[in-house]
Amino acid sequence: MSEPFFSDPEGTREQILAATYRALSRHGYADLTISAIGEEFEKSPSLVYRHYDSKDDLVLACLSYMLDQFETRFTDEEITDPRCRLESFLGWGLVEDLSDEEDEFIASLVELRSLAVHDDDYGRHFSRSDRVFERHLATILRAGIDQGVFQDRDPDRVAVILNTLMFGSLVRRATQQDTDQPWIEHVRAELATFLETQVYADGVAVRLFDDD
Amino acid sequence: MSEPFFSDPEGTREQILAATYRALSRHGYADLTISAIGEEFEKSPSLVYRHYDSKDDLVLACLSYMLDQFETRFTDEEITDPRCRLESFLGWGLVEDLSDEEDEFIASLVELRSLAVHDDDYGRHFSRSDRVFERHLATILRAGIDQGVFQDRDPDRVAVILNTLMFGSLVRRATQQDTDQPWIEHVRAELATFLETQVYADGVAVRLFDDD
Repeated sequence: MSEPFFSDPEGTREQILAATYRALSRHGYADLTISAIGEEFEKSPSLVYRHYDSKDDLVLACLSYMLDQFETRFTDEEITDPRCRLESFLGWGLVEDLSDEEDEFIASLVELRSLAVHDDDYGRHFSRSDRVFERHLATILRAGIDQGVFQDRDPDRVAVILNTLMFGSLVRRATQQDTDQPWIEHVRAELATFLETQVYADGVAVRLFDDD
Repeated sequence: MSEPFFSDPEGTREQILAATYRALSRHGYADLTISAIGEEFEKSPSLVYRHYDSKDDLVLACLSYMLDQFETRFTDEEITDPRCRLESFLGWGLVEDLSDEEDEFIASLVELRSLAVHDDDYGRHFSRSDRVFERHLATILRAGIDQGVFQDRDPDRVAVILNTLMFGSLVRRATQQDTDQPWIEHVRAELATFLETQVYADGVAVRLFDDD
């Protein structure tokens, strides 16, 4: 979800935001400093200070850029295989192994979202990200209904519960210390049952979670 | 879920933890100070300093006390009406209106859980709270299965997805700014459908969410 957005950043702004993403994944939000972002930046760190006033300006611009990229790349293309698209979107935070960078980025997302409790700028960002993800999920669901492969259920409602469950899973992933508790397998298995009984029209099994 | 735990605190320790709960609900975690907790305390604030070294000691002791109380009160009693118990537990964070104090406490829980990203003491607490809530949910589910009113599905798996969804809902409740987005109605409606089709054995409608 994250890395492709910064695989080949072109302008100075993109390079600064890519450096912010790398620094956030490396240090987490609490220990993030503008100078740590400057160290990840290929050009003069002074350029970072020239463009942005604070670490929150940088982090919010980085989050916003990634969400814009998500919107452009993933919501404009035609959905030819709704089931595959749905499972790959939902599976991101639920696969067994992510790269350390992805796990660190999820941890940062959980920290950053909690800032929205008191900070309206973060509140606006995460309200927008919920809207974007739910619109994307609803578009996939509508495509599946139109193609006759999904049940004719209210796509907006289903999108909201899936997105809410997804963020709950990210929080657990970032904060769970109890390695004996197989919560992630249980969420995958129950989500698969949900998709098979509440979403898919034809009793076909979920593919991406079938390693349980 | 919260207020009854501190309705009549008896010893000094309980009174200090009740004061911590009130101060946390009033100020949130970020702005919480030991002196703010002292102001909520009926006796000499110096007693607070004598018993606890830091605000995190106080907050962790408060969370732990509330969870102990939850375990004692709600997990020891016999479950005579599993459907009612399940809906009342799940409904706590999903009802339309909570008191300001409850909403503030949820916001604090979201802040505190994000500390678990870097702080092992909070990590241990929230891993334990997931275990306690999931054991409670699984006990209710097992009682329903034994009484023949719930479907015979793996109670541990169902408990995990419900608990994960519940924390996701608390995060949204505490951080959502988008008042146009009827996410909470959608979660309630989808959760009701989930219970009716995946949990309840007899097609009886969910009662507590039927105001949608």
